[in-house]
Amino acid sequence: MKRDELTEKILDIKRAKGWSWKHITTEIGGMSEVLVVGALLGQMKLVKPLAKKAAQLFELSESEERMLNETPYRGSPMPPTDPLLYRFYELIMVNGPAWKALIEEEFGDGIMSAIDFDMQIEREPNAKGDRVRISMSGKFLPYKYYGAEQGIPELGYKED
Amino acid sequence: MKRDELTEKILDIKRAKGWSWKHITTEIGGMSEVLVVGALLGQMKLVKPLAKKAAQLFELSESEERMLNETPYRGSPMPPTDPLLYRFYELIMVNGPAWKALIEEEFGDGIMSAIDFDMQIEREPNAKGDRVRISMSGKFLPYKYYGAEQGIPELGYKED
Amino acid sequence: MKRDELTEKILDIKRAKGWSWKHITTEIGGMSEVLVVGALLGQMKLVKPLAKKAAQLFELSESEERMLNETPYRGSPMPPTDPLLYRFYELIMVNGPAWKALIEEEFGDGIMSAIDFDMQIEREPNAKGDRVRISMSGKFLPYKYYGAEQGIPELGYKED
Amino acid sequence: MKRDELTEKILDIKRAKGWSWKHITTEIGGMSEVLVVGALLGQMKLVKPLAKKAAQLFELSESEERMLNETPYRGSPMPPTDPLLYRFYELIMVNGPAWKALIEEEFGDGIMSAIDFDMQIEREPNAKGDRVRISMSGKFLPYKYYGAEQGIPELGYKED
Amino acid sequence: MKRDELTEKILDIKRAKGWSWKHITTEIGGMSEVLVVGALLGQMKLVKPLAKKAAQLFELSESEERMLNETPYRGSPMPPTDPLLYRFYELIMVNGPAWKALIEEEFGDGIMSAIDFDMQIEREPNAKGDRVRISMSGKFLPYKYYGAEQGIPELGYKED
Amino acid sequence: MKRDELTEKILDIKRAKGWSWKHITTEIGGMSEVLVVGALLGQMKLVKPLAKKAAQLFELSESEERMLNETPYRGSPMPPTDPLLYRFYELIMVNGPAWKALIEEEFGDGIMSAIDFDMQIEREPNAKGDRVRISMSGKFLPYKYYGAEQGIPELGYKED
Amino acid sequence: MKRDELTEKILDIKRAKGWSWKHITTEIGGMSEVLVVGALLGQMKLVKPLAKKAAQLFELSESEERMLNETPYRGSPMPPTDPLLYRFYELIMVNGPAWKALIEEEFGDGIMSAIDFDMQIEREPNAKGDRVRISMSGKFLPYKYYGAEQGIPELGYKED
Amino acid sequence: MKRDELTEKILDIKRAKGWSWKHITTEIGGMSEVLVVGALLGQMKLVKPLAKKAAQLFELSESEERMLNETPYRGSPMPPTDPLLYRFYELIMVNGPAWKALIEEEFGDGIMSAIDFDMQIEREPNAKGDRVRISMSGKFLPYKYYGAEQGIPELGYKED
Amino acid sequence: MKRDELTEKILDIKRAKGWSWKHITTEIGGMSEVLVVGALLGQMKLVKPLAKKAAQLFELSESEERMLNETPYRGSPMPPTDPLLYRFYELIMVNGPAWKALIEEEFGDGIMSAIDFDMQIEREPNAKGDRVRISMSGKFLPYKYYGAEQGIPELGYKED
Amino acid sequence: MKRDELTEKILDIKRAKGWSWKHITTEIGGMSEVLVVGALLGQMKLVKPLAKKAAQLFELSESEERMLNETPYRGSPMPPTDPLLYRFYELIMVNGPAWKALIEEEFGDGIMSAIDFDMQIEREPNAKGDRVRISMSGKFLPYKYYGAEQGIPELGYKED
Repeated sequence: MKRDELTEKILDIKRAKGWSWKHITTEIGGMSEVLVVGALLGQMKLVKPLAKKAAQLFELSESEERMLNETPYRGSPMPPTDPLLYRFYELIMVNGPAWKALIEEEFGDGIMSAIDFDMQIEREPNAKGDRVRISMSGKFLPYKYYGAEQGIPELGYKED
Repeated sequence: MKRDELTEKILDIKRAKGWSWKHITTEIGGMSEVLVVGALLGQMKLVKPLAKKAAQLFELSESEERMLNETPYRGSPMPPTDPLLYRFYELIMVNGPAWKALIEEEFGDGIMSAIDFDMQIEREPNAKGDRVRISMSGKFLPYKYYGAEQGIPELGYKED
Repeated sequence: MKRDELTEKILDIKRAKGWSWKHITTEIGGMSEVLVVGALLGQMKLVKPLAKKAAQLFELSESEERMLNETPYRGSPMPPTDPLLYRFYELIMVNGPAWKALIEEEFGDGIMSAIDFDMQIEREPNAKGDRVRISMSGKFLPYKYYGAEQGIPELGYKED
Repeated sequence: MKRDELTEKILDIKRAKGWSWKHITTEIGGMSEVLVVGALLGQMKLVKPLAKKAAQLFELSESEERMLNETPYRGSPMPPTDPLLYRFYELIMVNGPAWKALIEEEFGDGIMSAIDFDMQIEREPNAKGDRVRISMSGKFLPYKYYGAEQGIPELGYKED
Repeated sequence: MKRDELTEKILDIKRAKGWSWKHITTEIGGMSEVLVVGALLGQMKLVKPLAKKAAQLFELSESEERMLNETPYRGSPMPPTDPLLYRFYELIMVNGPAWKALIEEEFGDGIMSAIDFDMQIEREPNAKGDRVRISMSGKFLPYKYYGAEQGIPELGYKED
Repeated sequence: MKRDELTEKILDIKRAKGWSWKHITTEIGGMSEVLVVGALLGQMKLVKPLAKKAAQLFELSESEERMLNETPYRGSPMPPTDPLLYRFYELIMVNGPAWKALIEEEFGDGIMSAIDFDMQIEREPNAKGDRVRISMSGKFLPYKYYGAEQGIPELGYKED
Repeated sequence: MKRDELTEKILDIKRAKGWSWKHITTEIGGMSEVLVVGALLGQMKLVKPLAKKAAQLFELSESEERMLNETPYRGSPMPPTDPLLYRFYELIMVNGPAWKALIEEEFGDGIMSAIDFDMQIEREPNAKGDRVRISMSGKFLPYKYYGAEQGIPELGYKED
Repeated sequence: MKRDELTEKILDIKRAKGWSWKHITTEIGGMSEVLVVGALLGQMKLVKPLAKKAAQLFELSESEERMLNETPYRGSPMPPTDPLLYRFYELIMVNGPAWKALIEEEFGDGIMSAIDFDMQIEREPNAKGDRVRISMSGKFLPYKYYGAEQGIPELGYKED
Repeated sequence: MKRDELTEKILDIKRAKGWSWKHITTEIGGMSEVLVVGALLGQMKLVKPLAKKAAQLFELSESEERMLNETPYRGSPMPPTDPLLYRFYELIMVNGPAWKALIEEEFGDGIMSAIDFDMQIEREPNAKGDRVRISMSGKFLPYKYYGAEQGIPELGYKED
Repeated sequence: MKRDELTEKILDIKRAKGWSWKHITTEIGGMSEVLVVGALLGQMKLVKPLAKKAAQLFELSESEERMLNETPYRGSPMPPTDPLLYRFYELIMVNGPAWKALIEEEFGDGIMSAIDFDMQIEREPNAKGDRVRISMSGKFLPYKYYGAEQGIPELGYKED
């Protein structure tokens, strides 16, 4: 059994039952819906109690339940050909240089974590047409200069 | 003269003067700093009054000022090899399928605009290590079904 | 069930019945034929009443009908190896720079929407050989300069 | 001298003079502006009398004038990273399958020529936001079945 | 049913029967053998009377016969890894620049059509080792300069 | 000095003098024009007496003359973005499978040489529009089965 | 039936029987083992008498025997990810420029044939660790200058 | 000035002076040599006091010293064609699946940081040929499940 | 049977039994766990006695046991889309140039072997968050200068 | 100074002097000509005494002499577009699977080293056309199973 076969089975059941993602994530609960939907689509791991709930909801076998609890091989095809996803890709292509300049000026040399990371998607009502509001928060991880001598001022990144 | 030669010149002056981006965007003013920095890095257009201010600040020629006011050929190399930018790219690869599922369930068939789009980057103080907070807001653009007959319920997307 | 399996099934039935696309789009009605054919080929969503008609015409199951009403993961392989499609691709490669120059001079900084977009394909009779006439109309979407100060003239893009 | 060096020189002069494309194409005249702009950007050939006018306008040398009259090595980078051009690319990815189905049903086996091809770009005023209107007309070229026996009905494509 | 499944079936029958392509193209007749073999391999359309003959020869179903009469999605993988096909690919890589220079000097700005195109492959006996002789003939298609003013000499391409 | 710098110099002189390729190949003589033009464009070697004539014609230095006599690193970018060259590329993609089937049936297992190869390009007058006629003749090279036992019939390829 | 399905079947039988390649090539005989193994792996053609022997050994059907006698679509994925094969690939990347310089100085303008080509792989005992010895011998094929005038010395490649 | 021009200048000086990296890193001091060499090669940032020392050693201008203190756009071409670097790349290709399985079993769902990361390269004397010893230590970063309900056992990743 | 089908079967059994890799490698024993897991995932060969133990543990057929003892076609897709593996890939992109400089200065011209190579992965407890410790040791292989004259000092690499 | 600039300079001098590679390698001596030519073309390192001789021959500066003694970043573009080099590439594509099968059966699990590697290119006179003879000899490097228990027979690879 491959993870994408399980994903296809889950989507088939969702379609046959006529369930929405909201219904599914409410039934499973326990984590933000982005994470639960990501796991059902084969990109995230469902922790055990949630995998159990998902298995009950979709009437999965014990092996399928365990597969939901496994960390998948993450990643989907790039560049995305789907217009909805491509717009995010384009945002990086166009704004990436400015993001890098501003984040490094504010935080120093490092990155925003994509692992210790949280995100919400919301509808933002607007008279000229509703907007999609996306809020991301990722821990800043400074490049560590191991081996650096004590007492060099700029090296004073403190580990949290 | 090519746009990236102008970008290189601007970065040379910034370095020689020891200016920060905050200093530069405050001097030029008028738009969010992401847009001004993007323009100075060759990915955005500076509107005329701001191009004038930028030209005064960097002592640019009239042709260089006009070039800042031109819409550039946008886009930077993908996939990004720089770790800071790659993390954003990875977010799309891993979370893209869930984003698509949830946005389409909430908004219907369409996309979040990357053109009618606003964004802020902020520092989020946190005892365990400060976080990068990114807030995006893009207008939702529904796929239009031109040629559709009147009176079909689900077709009732109204134009703004 | 995957969307391309449904597409294959629909094409098998079309072939077995000897139907033309004109026959199919007339039977289903309700939207321009480009959109209906696009949906049956797995690139567009059929709104519910049309998905119902399509299901009746092709004698699809309820799950298949629901799948036609889902937004697919859009996109087909690029560059197109088929000569008919490649000619469109070539038009962008060769004429793209001129299109960008002329659209930006006329409309300012922005894009022609591929979402709020309409299109017709027609036969244009011609003594020297008939021609394919394609008419496209897409809403112009100006880049928004959020955060811009009031009263800067060139920033006066008004939201519709 | 390479063609893109000539293009860069022409753009430098255009910027220094503050000319619009409309001004330039009016001065040069003689062909549709898409073709003249395409030639000045290095994707089309300017016929001799127009190359002469372009040379006078931009004060080019005789060698540069001759270069404008040469057929260039056509093509620009794909996929386009610039959002304005990418939208056209996306239209092919998403609508290509339907275009192929409908054109072949209407015209038979063949292609729309990208060589015997005409095109206009116009502004379409619209209360909800102006639209870009693009009209294309390309000669349909049927696949020729040379060597086919006489009298086979479907083979009766007549050469123009 | 997919076109390559039909191709595989046809090759299985050819192998089981021990037929040569010459036998098959003689049986089907009606067009040059390159076109008939191309159609059986899924790259060309067989016109109806020939599709009927092919169906009789291979004892195909009615749906399979109709599929042979459909225009396929053309194209095979590039660059070709097979040595026989790679040599043709190499000829373009090495000789392409000279072909372009000579064809454009002789014919003006345009292309040799790959659609209105005829081709023969023959054995050329030679004491030092027989040779493959390939003769191609494609209609020259000049770039059309629509919108061009009357009376400009070099614009005088006449449409056929 | 790089070969493409020499090519650029030769094209600059050709343009400044207003010479045609026919003039140049007539002056240099000695080989088919496809080969001479190929050499001047950096894809072929000019044998010494012809390199001398070319050097006289273009007033090249001794080093440049010697470079023309060197075998270049052959090859130009693929896939070709230029429409004239792309049509040849497409012919391989679409017709390749049939060529392979027919050549192997006629000649056995092997290839048409791209090295022991001759080619002419001619104008073929035609009332419906002139045609480009290309005649190729390449030696057939059979795969050699070294180590094969004597007396196996099908192994009886004789070396030339 | 596809060629790689036949390859998989042959490998399954080899594994089930516990045969070595040496055993198999000895049983089939008639050609060097590189060629026989290559054919069983789907990259070479087995001539009829050997295909018959292979069919007897592996108890193949008549269709499978005929498939072994067909010229396959040659080629395996590149760059090779397997370390054993990658080392050969690397040898070309690193030594290619020197090979080209030395072969052309010794032989003139041309190539080493990959078709009229022979090869042995042997073990070379060595106290510091045995070595793999590979001996290749390919016919040198000079570029032919058809159309060249008689009597030009350097053109005096004689055809074999 | 671009970062790779500065790198080229530094390498020119190193060569002219005949310095080793050991000499250079000893002179500059302050951080592990991997980081200092990385910075001089344009992949890392040199903190201010070290940039000052580097500037003194190489007699750099103030702008060049500041550039060494900037975070570069990181990344070098992949896949690496150089054999020394390719071997590391191959290690990931071949061992990656096992690393993922073992790290996730030991640590749970997450990654080894490439940012909070330390590394040493040492010579390991060995009678059969010295060995390269590489020791890496990266902080394990668990995927965070924000939005998770309290009290779900497996969710009990504690933030550091 | 293909190697990845065997891998899938092994993972299905592991999941159904609820075994950890530690349990499996303890049961099979005999080699480091990285190698055993690599073999079960299709990237390494299991030597005969271990293949036998693995076959007993997973109740494999004799053919499957033999397949585990075959050297697989190694390699997994690159660049890795999974974040855990990508971080290793990034380490090469960013640190590669410094590794090359330092290893060559210390060892001379050569590589660290990826074949005569050993590796351990360990947990490194740390109050600020545990760390992944990876220790690699690969034999240094100097480029051999065969054909070199005796007595040239720098050529004095001794073979082990 | 970059290594390819030095290569270009060396080729310019070789051309101006009219030297052959044989002359150059004889003058420099000390190693096989493949290695010396490889170094002059920027793919190998010249050991110090040979770099000195090369510097005298080509009248290079001290910095240029030192650069010849540096290990370059190895590798040239792949796939090779030049026909001479492509034939080697094709040999791997077509024969790779058989080489892997035969080498592994003879030597066990491992590779032929591309580092401890020797090679000769010779002319093999032949009445039917001379042949290029290439002899390669690379040390076989077995995959090491570190951590393997003592006394497992198949693990008995002895280190040299």
